[in-house]
Amino acid sequence: PRLSVEAVEEGGFLAPRFNADGLIPVVTTDASSGEVLMMGMMNAEALLRTIETGEAHYWSRSRQCLWHKGATSGLIQKVVQIRVDDDQDAIWLRVQVEGSASCHVGYRSCFYRSIPVGPFGDAPIPLSFEEAAKIFDPVAVYRDAPNPTQL
Amino acid sequence: PRLSVEAVEEGGFLAPRFNADGLIPVVTTDASSGEVLMMGMMNAEALLRTIETGEAHYWSRSRQCLWHKGATSGLIQKVVQIRVDDDQDAIWLRVQVEGSASCHVGYRSCFYRSIPVGPFGDAPIPLSFEEAAKIFDPVAVYRDAPNPTQL
Repeated sequence: PRLSVEAVEEGGFLAPRFNADGLIPVVTTDASSGEVLMMGMMNAEALLRTIETGEAHYWSRSRQCLWHKGATSGLIQKVVQIRVDDDQDAIWLRVQVEGSASCHVGYRSCFYRSIPVGPFGDAPIPLSFEEAAKIFDPVAVYRDAPNPTQL
Repeated sequence: PRLSVEAVEEGGFLAPRFNADGLIPVVTTDASSGEVLMMGMMNAEALLRTIETGEAHYWSRSRQCLWHKGATSGLIQKVVQIRVDDDQDAIWLRVQVEGSASCHVGYRSCFYRSIPVGPFGDAPIPLSFEEAAKIFDPVAVYRDAPNPTQL
């Protein structure tokens, strides 16, 4: 129950705010390195399953279903800590990853490319790869599962 | 131009995907500690300003305007690195914060409370405070600016 700003910001009970689609954004970091592994969404059921089981569950927007991360790939995320932000409309999961990779492309983190700072005018903005190599071969792991990236 | 999944995931140029509202989610971490400070949103202009100036800009959903973080509070976020995720629909900012706090409630991180793992049945889920004290007094810093938390 989100009865007051004070209760939401300073209170000692969970009162999450889901968006118009019933979802709350989640950032997941490696509990050891602090690296951001991925950003995803949870619906109420995914959040509750994560709290109850200690394994990360998300809502898959591409597949429109509850998503127990690692069910296909084996890359289960064990929850070390769950945090909620000031207005309780975002979740931070600190996890330990089985297999040490989180990204469906095969990298450790989904954020394997950086954007340089600087003026580019109308030129395309280049990206730099920050991981030297993939951790696993996505074709071998996911076989013929559809790619979740949407254009 | 998001012409193919391969170009988006494996390509060397920025091709961000904004949602139906023209926004892309952003997670901001302390570049030294790895701690997640906040989650926010950027529109195309906020992303470009961040890239060009090296200071974090967001889109404020509560105020519906471009938001140069720290313009009111002085808590400017200097960009150490910008990263983009595999399908280019999320941004990770690694920053150094002037004044070492990011949260409008006064804490270092917006994620100052944790959610325990475990079954709670129908009972309220308790939160634990992870920061011992506020870094600053929000009333002194923001004066009569409206609180951004929405119920």
